Amino acid sequence: MASIKPSVPKGTRDFSPAEMAKRNFIFDTIKGVFRKYGYQQIETPSMENLSTLTGKYGDEGDKLIFKILNSGDFLAKADEQAIANKNSNQAISSISEKALRYDLTVPFARYVVQHQNDITFPFKRFQVQPVWRADRPQKGRYREFYQCDADVVGSASLLNEAEFIMIYDEALSLLGLKNFTIKINNRKILSGIAEVIDKPDNIIDLTVAIDKIDKIGLHGVIKELTEKGFTDADITKLKPVILLEGNNEEKLEKLRQALQSSAIGLQGCDEIEIVFNYIKHTPLKKATLELDITLARGLNYYTGAIFEVKTNEVAMGSIGGGGRYDDLTGMFSLKGLTGAGISFGADRIYDVLEELNLFPAAAEQGTTVLICCFDAAGETYALPLLQQLRDNNISAELYPAGTKIKKQMDYANNKHIPYTILIGSDEMQSGSLSFKNMESGEQESLSANQIVAKLSGKTGQRK
Amino acid sequence: MASIKPSVPKGTRDFSPAEMAKRNFIFDTIKGVFRKYGYQQIETPSMENLSTLTGKYGDEGDKLIFKILNSGDFLAKADEQAIANKNSNQAISSISEKALRYDLTVPFARYVVQHQNDITFPFKRFQVQPVWRADRPQKGRYREFYQCDADVVGSASLLNEAEFIMIYDEALSLLGLKNFTIKINNRKILSGIAEVIDKPDNIIDLTVAIDKIDKIGLHGVIKELTEKGFTDADITKLKPVILLEGNNEEKLEKLRQALQSSAIGLQGCDEIEIVFNYIKHTPLKKATLELDITLARGLNYYTGAIFEVKTNEVAMGSIGGGGRYDDLTGMFSLKGLTGAGISFGADRIYDVLEELNLFPAAAEQGTTVLICCFDAAGETYALPLLQQLRDNNISAELYPAGTKIKKQMDYANNKHIPYTILIGSDEMQSGSLSFKNMESGEQESLSANQIVAKLSGKTGQRK
Repeated sequence: MASIKPSVPKGTRDFSPAEMAKRNFIFDTIKGVFRKYGYQQIETPSMENLSTLTGKYGDEGDKLIFKILNSGDFLAKADEQAIANKNSNQAISSISEKALRYDLTVPFARYVVQHQNDITFPFKRFQVQPVWRADRPQKGRYREFYQCDADVVGSASLLNEAEFIMIYDEALSLLGLKNFTIKINNRKILSGIAEVIDKPDNIIDLTVAIDKIDKIGLHGVIKELTEKGFTDADITKLKPVILLEGNNEEKLEKLRQALQSSAIGLQGCDEIEIVFNYIKHTPLKKATLELDITLARGLNYYTGAIFEVKTNEVAMGSIGGGGRYDDLTGMFSLKGLTGAGISFGADRIYDVLEELNLFPAAAEQGTTVLICCFDAAGETYALPLLQQLRDNNISAELYPAGTKIKKQMDYANNKHIPYTILIGSDEMQSGSLSFKNMESGEQESLSANQIVAKLSGKTGQRK
Repeated sequence: MASIKPSVPKGTRDFSPAEMAKRNFIFDTIKGVFRKYGYQQIETPSMENLSTLTGKYGDEGDKLIFKILNSGDFLAKADEQAIANKNSNQAISSISEKALRYDLTVPFARYVVQHQNDITFPFKRFQVQPVWRADRPQKGRYREFYQCDADVVGSASLLNEAEFIMIYDEALSLLGLKNFTIKINNRKILSGIAEVIDKPDNIIDLTVAIDKIDKIGLHGVIKELTEKGFTDADITKLKPVILLEGNNEEKLEKLRQALQSSAIGLQGCDEIEIVFNYIKHTPLKKATLELDITLARGLNYYTGAIFEVKTNEVAMGSIGGGGRYDDLTGMFSLKGLTGAGISFGADRIYDVLEELNLFPAAAEQGTTVLICCFDAAGETYALPLLQQLRDNNISAELYPAGTKIKKQMDYANNKHIPYTILIGSDEMQSGSLSFKNMESGEQESLSANQIVAKLSGKTGQRK
């Protein structure tokens, strides 16, 4: 036995068969919904040219990009001065030309620009691939994790926003969630609020304060806003916004009142209303749709709708988010292409389903039946049955002969195999095989054909 | 428009929706067969500790491993002397702790050792993930490509070898191949041959020469062997091996004759025979199984069976290979765990299916029906139908209103969508919608329910 066990780099994970079955359940469900809505899968390389990624995520982001050391004699072309000065940052580009993708959005923008002549717009694509970030690892934050994105580019229609809501609703309902909220806001409403009080740079201060109203009350919110430099006049104007209550229609109506002097603010209200109208014609399955003006994610790139999804069944950060951006491909000099997109937080969804015990018996992932035998004669007898089972699409294994039956049964139990077939000399003589339900312990004598008939269509697995 | 288009690093690729559909067909088929045979999926991180990978692939391999530059101020801990001497090789470990996996086998060995206490042996795992190699890119050779492996560890039974043959047979048959050969050899036979002529280091010279017999004849082979240092006595002993002909049984019989003085050689013959006997009880679907003693891949790690798969329908290198290794986990100090495994060459299989036009209409991957309308009223009318279609598991899209019908039809054609529904004012009034088969051009007037009934269960796509 090994004295020092090998390990994986910190922030990375192995996925065992049981974990893979659960992850596949999540990804397959989401992919299936993306496809049903006309989204098509693409994949991009794990590595991009470093120049494609640099400068897209801010200075902090640049530091978190994993760079790949140039192959071969990388020191031959290294920046000697930077190295002599121990200036790591300056040295990087001389010894690294490639890097691991940091998200799926920048590679997607690069893809659209690179293949623009082959793409039919509106281009609805989805992408499920790992990304890498040199973040400090902590609970729930990994250095390698999957992103699960759907984006449409080349269509300004708000139907796309409505469809994203339907996609969240359908996918999360299929995953078994029963109570979750899709929050929607619009960047233009936030811009409108800023315009009304002439404070374009304090939007975040405002939304952070308003978000606390349930905890600290109107008085507390006003106190916080005053500390942040909002005047009494500002606060008077903002009161209807701070106190925004009621259903979505009522909120919209009050917002229109408060934003009547802002063209962009009213446009934001119009856009939200159009999305709501689409949804009226396509009732949601399990989701609650909620206008939430404190939703202020991605303000430096979202230009229209902003989405965030939260489960109401367990305490957990957002399990999805997205929005509209008017200039995705501008970073690669292709201007004027509007887009919108959403993302599912697969790792958090995994934790939610685990906590709520929502993973189904891992359908079609495991072995349905294990054939056990005592010796080579049993093996030989079993082989045609094994093939017959598999030809009927029943996942089946034959335990190699020469191992005690007890150990074979342990194998079935450890792998959660729901049925076993025992082949001894009596069984071979009579053709009547001992068929056992490993869950109930029930045992019966059946012919090969009877067993195949019984198991046909059964793909479930014990939990 | 961009003047300089962005690109991907050399040796890497984007996969378009059409390519993804085809790749998914290949991977889903192979994964389905792996599962049916009781193999379970795992995934390991893209990055491993550099020390986990170094020294496992030979000096040449070590150079081809992509190293990841340490994050942050990597120069602070850099080996100053190595850098001053411009000794790139020596500097690496001081500025890089992690690397991208080079294959799936070493990470699997690391996984088995790390998780040995949680694993039920025999452990049958499959893994389909990308690997990275800093090879010089060329036609058909990429720096990022998927490997598709199944391995079993902890079972010495030759039933596993037989099952690998069945897996190749079933998976490649399902992919549409009609004529392919699974070649099998056994390392022990090669060792036996070396033993008989007492030339353990010249096995490759021998197999390379024998492999040419169809081209250069016995005379040519003998000439080549003589040049490589084989004596007349050697060649006399080897003649039955060089001239090995007939069916598998006849070849085995002749080999036994030639190897009668070598215990290990005879053991190799026995092993091959046992595998053949298993296969006799489970007829192959499309594959031809062929004993080929010139098969000499992976001699530095395979210890028993050696496999290679070739299609006979187009000229192409091997599309699969594998074998038995007696000491997979020894590199991580866990001794005595025998294993065997196979791999599918997905990129080559892709090229074969493309050349033979074997990709099916990309089932379940594309949109089945596009709803087209003229204006917002049409959109509103269409939404319940859109939802009804999707609720019946029919992949459907609604083209956002405000675009000419011609352009909407182009969209359907470019996306190979087989059906369209047109909703104009007449249609809205009568409830009788214009339903068009885009392939045949046939058009009919149908109610929403009739359309849903007609499309239910249709997931195919135009090619």
